Parts: sequence; C-alpha cells; structure tokens
Amino acid sequence: MTTRVTIWNEFLHEVENDEVRSIYPEGMHETLAAAFKEHGGFETKTATLREPEHGLTEEVLENTDVLLWWGHKAHHEVDDEVAARVQRHVLNGMGMVTLHSGHYSKPFTRVMGTYGSLVWREADEKERLWNLRPDHPIMDGIPDYIELEKEEMYGERFDIPTPDELLMISWFQGGEVFRSACTWQRGLGRVVYFRPGHETYPTYHNPLIQRIIVQAADWAKARVRRDAAGSPNQTSFEPVPNPTKEHIL
Amino acid sequence: MTTRVTIWNEFLHEVENDEVRSIYPEGMHETLAAAFKEHGGFETKTATLREPEHGLTEEVLENTDVLLWWGHKAHHEVDDEVAARVQRHVLNGMGMVTLHSGHYSKPFTRVMGTYGSLVWREADEKERLWNLRPDHPIMDGIPDYIELEKEEMYGERFDIPTPDELLMISWFQGGEVFRSACTWQRGLGRVVYFRPGHETYPTYHNPLIQRIIVQAADWAKARVRRDAAGSPNQTSFEPVPNPTKEHIL
Amino acid sequence: MTTRVTIWNEFLHEVENDEVRSIYPEGMHETLAAAFKEHGGFETKTATLREPEHGLTEEVLENTDVLLWWGHKAHHEVDDEVAARVQRHVLNGMGMVTLHSGHYSKPFTRVMGTYGSLVWREADEKERLWNLRPDHPIMDGIPDYIELEKEEMYGERFDIPTPDELLMISWFQGGEVFRSACTWQRGLGRVVYFRPGHETYPTYHNPLIQRIIVQAADWAKARVRRDAAGSPNQTSFEPVPNPTKEHIL
Amino acid sequence: MTTRVTIWNEFLHEVENDEVRSIYPEGMHETLAAAFKEHGGFETKTATLREPEHGLTEEVLENTDVLLWWGHKAHHEVDDEVAARVQRHVLNGMGMVTLHSGHYSKPFTRVMGTYGSLVWREADEKERLWNLRPDHPIMDGIPDYIELEKEEMYGERFDIPTPDELLMISWFQGGEVFRSACTWQRGLGRVVYFRPGHETYPTYHNPLIQRIIVQAADWAKARVRRDAAGSPNQTSFEPVPNPTKEHIL
Repeated sequence: MTTRVTIWNEFLHEVENDEVRSIYPEGMHETLAAAFKEHGGFETKTATLREPEHGLTEEVLENTDVLLWWGHKAHHEVDDEVAARVQRHVLNGMGMVTLHSGHYSKPFTRVMGTYGSLVWREADEKERLWNLRPDHPIMDGIPDYIELEKEEMYGERFDIPTPDELLMISWFQGGEVFRSACTWQRGLGRVVYFRPGHETYPTYHNPLIQRIIVQAADWAKARVRRDAAGSPNQTSFEPVPNPTKEHIL
Repeated sequence: MTTRVTIWNEFLHEVENDEVRSIYPEGMHETLAAAFKEHGGFETKTATLREPEHGLTEEVLENTDVLLWWGHKAHHEVDDEVAARVQRHVLNGMGMVTLHSGHYSKPFTRVMGTYGSLVWREADEKERLWNLRPDHPIMDGIPDYIELEKEEMYGERFDIPTPDELLMISWFQGGEVFRSACTWQRGLGRVVYFRPGHETYPTYHNPLIQRIIVQAADWAKARVRRDAAGSPNQTSFEPVPNPTKEHIL
Repeated sequence: MTTRVTIWNEFLHEVENDEVRSIYPEGMHETLAAAFKEHGGFETKTATLREPEHGLTEEVLENTDVLLWWGHKAHHEVDDEVAARVQRHVLNGMGMVTLHSGHYSKPFTRVMGTYGSLVWREADEKERLWNLRPDHPIMDGIPDYIELEKEEMYGERFDIPTPDELLMISWFQGGEVFRSACTWQRGLGRVVYFRPGHETYPTYHNPLIQRIIVQAADWAKARVRRDAAGSPNQTSFEPVPNPTKEHIL
Repeated sequence: MTTRVTIWNEFLHEVENDEVRSIYPEGMHETLAAAFKEHGGFETKTATLREPEHGLTEEVLENTDVLLWWGHKAHHEVDDEVAARVQRHVLNGMGMVTLHSGHYSKPFTRVMGTYGSLVWREADEKERLWNLRPDHPIMDGIPDYIELEKEEMYGERFDIPTPDELLMISWFQGGEVFRSACTWQRGLGRVVYFRPGHETYPTYHNPLIQRIIVQAADWAKARVRRDAAGSPNQTSFEPVPNPTKEHIL
C-alpha cells in the first residue's frame, strides 16, 4: 500500500538567498520529494508557508500518512490554529518527521511539551552521526557513522522529553554532542526528530541522509487513525462509549 | 532544607456537594496539607480556582518547589495564561504532581502534548494498585499492593506519552487496568501523575495514598531552576551565550 | 524476502498429558507453525528439547531470523552451552519471541539479567489483555482488548528490566495485573515477551493471539547480523578495527 | 542513616606499574574511599581481586548498600560463583556502580545480558562530558559539561541495553561520542555505569568526577532487600506465597 507523504517546507531561504537557491533550486521540499520518488512506495505532496492555511487544510492532513516539517526563521508566522490542527492529526494517528530547525516549530513543541531549545553555531564544522541502533528499521543500511564535511552545530542540552528511542548521536568538531535521531509516540501517532539539514549545506542531497528520512517516514506512517471528529474523550480508535455499571464482569 | 509545596485544588465539589464536604470539610487541599505537615520537612501553601489568578501568581510559582494539582469539572475555567505560566515554571525546574482527574487539566496536557484521555466509570468498585518499583523513592514503604474498597474506575488506553517510569498499575473489579503512577522529566522539571482520589471517596485520608503523594512531591521537587526571564533559547540553568567560532576547541 | 522462523517447544506436556494432547495433538509448535504458514511470508522450522542439542545447532541458529521459545517444566534440562549459544545469536542480531512460562527459561533470563519471577495461579479465570499501543506494528489489527475465557494467572511484580516498549497489560479476574507484551533491544537483536499460552487451554488456536505472535516475529526478525565468529570486542556489524591515534580527525 | 559502600578494585595496575602507582599510591579504591569520607554520610569498605573470594563474601555483600566496581585486565580471574553472587545481591536490592573498564566485568555483563563491548583508543585526548539531566540527583551541582584534558577514548556503539536514564554523553577529540553516565533498574537493585577513570590519568582526583560517583552511590543504594535465601520464585520483598484459588476476589 502506498504511503502518502506531505513535505512541508517554510520555503523562504530558497527564495530570498542566492546561496541557498543554488543548492536547492526548487526548494528543499522538491529535493526531498525526489528522494521519496526514487525510493518507491510513496505518494508525495508538498506544502509551504505562504500557501493559504500553509497548505495544510483539514483535507490535506486527513489524506496524509506522514508529514515532514522543515521550518526555520518564520515559526511565528505559522498560524496557531494550523499548528493545533497538525497536533490533533498526530494524536489521531498521522506520523510526523521534524527536520533540523523544526525543533522550535509550533507543531513539534506542542507535541513535546518542552521548549525544544539547544545551543548552536555556524562555523562550517565537521559532523559525525553515530549509529546506536543498527537493529532499527530507520537505521537499515546505515553504517557505523555518517560524516558530513560541513554542517551547522547543534549542541546539548537539547530540551526535549527523553526520547522513546535514541537512534543517533552527533559529534561536532568544536566540542559538542547532540541527540540527532530520536523517536517518540504521541497519542496514536509517531514522531521522529532528525537533526541535519542547515539550508546553506547540500545535506539533503546526501544519499544516506535521504535514506534515513525515507525510512523515518515509513516507520512513522499512520497505521490506525482516530476519526478527526473524535472528541478528546474518545480513547479508542474504534469509537466506543465509556463502560457503565452494566459492563462490570 | 525545607521543600515548598503549593497544593492547588479546584475546590468546587467540596463547596457545592454535601457528600463531598462531609469527607473533606475544609477541602481536599487542607487534608493533603495536613499530611505534608505530619510527614515533616515541607512548607505548604494552598491555592484554589476562584482566587485571583487562581492563586498562582508569578511570585507564588517562583517560590514553589513542587505544585500539586487536583481539578475536575472546571478545567475550562483555568486561564490559558496561568496554564502557560505553570508549564513554563515546570520547564524551568518546578516539580508538578497531577492527581486523579487532573489528567485533563491544562497544565498537564500542555506538558504532555497529548489528550490525556481515558475510559472511566463510577460504580463503587474495588481498586488494587500494584507496586512495580519497590526500589523507587516514591514507593518507599509501600507494600506489594494497595487496596481501595471503592473508587472511580479509570481504564486504558490512557492517552499519555510513554512514562519515563511506570511505578504502579491499577486493577479494577469491572475488568480494566490503568497506569496509575507515572513519572516524566520535562525541561528541568519533573512530573508525576497519580490516579486515585475521586471526590466522593475518602481516598486522600488513606495513609498509604498520603505517603505516595508526599514521596512523589519530595522526588519531583526542584533541584535546579532556570531564571524565569530566561528565553526559550537559553538551555543552561547557568546563563551562557551560544558558543561562537572562537569556542571551537 | 522470506523470514525464517524457528519454533522451539519443550514438547513434554503434549506427550505426557492427555488433556494437553487433545488440545495440541501435534504439539504447540505445529499449531504455531500452521499459523505462520497461513499468514504467509515465513519459512518455519521446529525444534524440541529432546532432539540432539535441543535442535538448536550453530547451523540452525545461523539460519534463523527469529526464534520462538515455549518451555515450562524442564528449563533445567536445557544445556547451558545451548542457552549461551542462543544468547550469543540474539546479541548478534537474531530475534527472540519468548512465550508464556519461557519467562524462566535460560535464554530469556540470560538476556534479561533478572530472575524473571512472578506470581501465578491456576484457577480457570478470565484474562483481558489491554492494548496500549495501537500504533505499534505488533498490535496491528488488534482491538482495544482481547478476552480469554480461561487462562492461568500471572501477576506482578514481574521481575524484568523495564521494557523498552510496553504493548499490553493483562487484567485477571482474581485481582492481579501483568505486563503481558513487552519488547527489548539486546545487542543487535530484538526480544519480545508475550504472556498467554498455558498448555491446558486452547490459547494458541485464538486468531488474535496468533496474529500477535506472527507480528511479533516479523517485528523482531534479524535485520543485521554480526559474524557469529565475532569476538565480544567487535561492536560493528561491519568488522572494523578499533580506531588508533592515526584516526584522530 | 549511613550508607554502607564497598569499593571493589582489581588493584593490579597500581601494584605493577610505576606510572599508575604515582597517581594512586594506595590504589584507586583508597582515593575513592577518601572522597566518600570527605562527602560524609557513608561508611566505606574496600575489597580487591587477590583477597580470598575477592573480598566479596556473602557476609560482606549482605552488609553492602552499594558496591563500586573497577576492573580492567583481569576480568577472567573473577570467580564465576562470586560474579553470580554479586548479580544475586543486585537483584535482591544492592546497588552497583560500575566504573570505566568495568563495562566488560562479569557482574556488569551478567546483569545487562549484553557483551558490553565498545571501541577504544589511548591517545591522550580531550574528553567533554555533557550533562543531559540537571534535574537528576546524580547530576546535582554538575555544570553543563565537565572537561578532562586527557583520557582514554571510549566510543559507540556501546553494547548495552537502552539505559533507563541517560545522564551524560561524552565527546572525544578524535571524533567519537559515548553514553558515559547511564542508569538501569534490575530486580530490586539499581545499576549505574560511569565511564571516566583510565588508570594512567588522575581522573578520580577530579572533584566533579568524585561528586558524580558519590551521588551515583547515594542514588543506587539499597532501599529494600529481598532475603538472600529467597528463591527466584519469590517476587515479593515481603515473603508471600503465590495466591491460590481462595484468593480470588
């Protein structure tokens, strides 16, 4: 069965900055969409900040098995109602893969409950991502480590809830470490955070980075969905009433 | 060093309902405050819904090491700004112990990121809380299980993030189970959820239930605090700037 | 790609006890093998205690992606060397699904590091297994709960390391609860424990129980394998030497 | 109440190697014992490999609330029966803090169930240990990171079960990272692993490293103990029979 992926991108850097545009001429979302197409088994859509409702209408989300999110300098422009809508869909079963500076995005911090803060530095330094979980489907085919010649540094303490699964830890030349690939379950949905992808580096052209993102989407995709109209009081994915006295065994 | 506890109670049932008032004449918060006094080592304050700012001003929270929360039928009356303030204080280091129907409270669902939903039934049925973690400070002195003759039933699936620690599972006469004592870390703060305490039963007079609540508060109390003025971008509890190129080793 | 399952059964009760034989005429391993065949995508072998090396030679294990284990009254008859061999294969990548009284088996307690103890009672009582993780591949298609009319009771405290994932909690008529479906990662391998399956009940004929076992095997199957000859000092699944001074970046 | 600490040291390097002896003239165990004395609230004993039963008789362990373990080049000389005895005491409630190369020790690998393997390099390189859990009692008073000018490198993949709590991640100059401070619950006992402490460096004289070790012992100390004679089938720390049919509610 085909997995329906929606790739959301802020899509401002690529429009406003020549350097970034030279790396991602059609925007990062198109580079990532091409990676999904190449891999096969996915049907991809894209959505961006400046579209009406940021391209994330109720209908789009209802037809999305997993949502990718890349945002950076305009988190505040994301409408609170749309952010709440994304959170609701995650809790109802949709997967979400948050990339790089999405750690500060409204949908991610809402489902985490924390600031999502970290330390960072732009210094063209080397990053090594170490693979802790060769047994994990998201790490399938990934070697002991991936090396990126130049990336932005993200350092601990990363203000997130303890991940359910910690898949990779990054080493940076300047002396920092970072939990770079993490998973969590939230409601009926699954959430992945994956660190690399600063806009001024060609990171999303790297085949191993692409492989992890595709496998993260496959792992996080919705398996069950709660009716979008379901009240918060409805815990079951098959609508059931609360049990009453008659239900006592 | 004395731990400063603030006990927050909705304090509506005790005012409006004779049965509840007969069990908790001064309100549950006073019953719990007495338990803390008896145990020793705590300085307790109380706060209730109908006070200005629900009794939870910036100053009160700054001087609170751990906040207890009991709310039930008026979650919607809690001001969004006060709920956000409580969340911020938790992330900055304050502990929070959420009791019973507080699973739907604004502060709890904000730090969890999930609905907090569950199934429930009022049928005067027996509850048994099984102790999974005799090694844990919150379970100190607690036997293999605690039996409550009559309680409200709460049943799975409890819509919470996977707990960092699962301390107790409840059994209910009618056929349900429930993760009844759970802990999570959020930011620099620690969060506990403890299930029992429906207002029509004398649960908070039970010495073992009191013991768990007191020990939960002791476990969750703030050990470090981030400056309340700290921006979300400040990860350290000792204010530090983001490292720059000069910091590369 | 076909997953190679080896189903290990003590196979004593079915031989020695008429009641058990009437439920599982060919042995439980054959009932389970039939379930895998029906589901498709698996190639199954069986192995039993009284075979030479209990049917678990080095060669058999090297060609096993996931091992199922049902043992009860003859754990002590399992050769220590074979138990160590199974443990080594799990750490090197083979999956293991431990069923019912396998909680006391040598391979399980070796990879857990704990006693695996619990309380139990045979009283023909009702069991309800509650589904905590509808998002999890092992729980695919499983309703809110599964009810078994009669089963042996297993109660907490179950002496296991905190599971990486807790998928189901059982409720028993007599007042106990139990963590009935748990997963752990060990080395490059994945381990599942699944509770039901006392030999005097037809539990393994239940389609939902079969579905969970098949899905558990699929989830736990080996994805990477370390060379069986690999020394414990070899962490990588692609043999690499320890880095030396020349490797400093 | 005083916590009774037993510090176990292989005590071979300090005897056989001049360089190591110059750093730890009385052995590392005495340096660590002095740190506990200075901190207060502990009663310390020491034990070493070449003593009868390695100094770890049944009586010594029964009177130990928490055991520290440093071993390196003679893991194979530790008697299997003594290793099993230590494991049993951990499962029955005794705490264990494993230091540095103790990752390969018999007691640690027995309670973990894994190889404990890792990559390593001796190259006098810089280590930085990053603090992920400022809220945790073991991290009390520890800054954002600790820097050690020269240490042995330990790198991932560290072959351990996923820690219940991950407190620190190390960065090494040469390009590796490591999960350096981890905790696990096993049976009624608590286990800590703490990485630093190669014998040729003065690491255990560092006040922050000492502080972590003392706080780790305080956190891991026994709170409940199961009778040493307790059979594995005895799950309760208060001896109870298995429930029978008469116990059905």
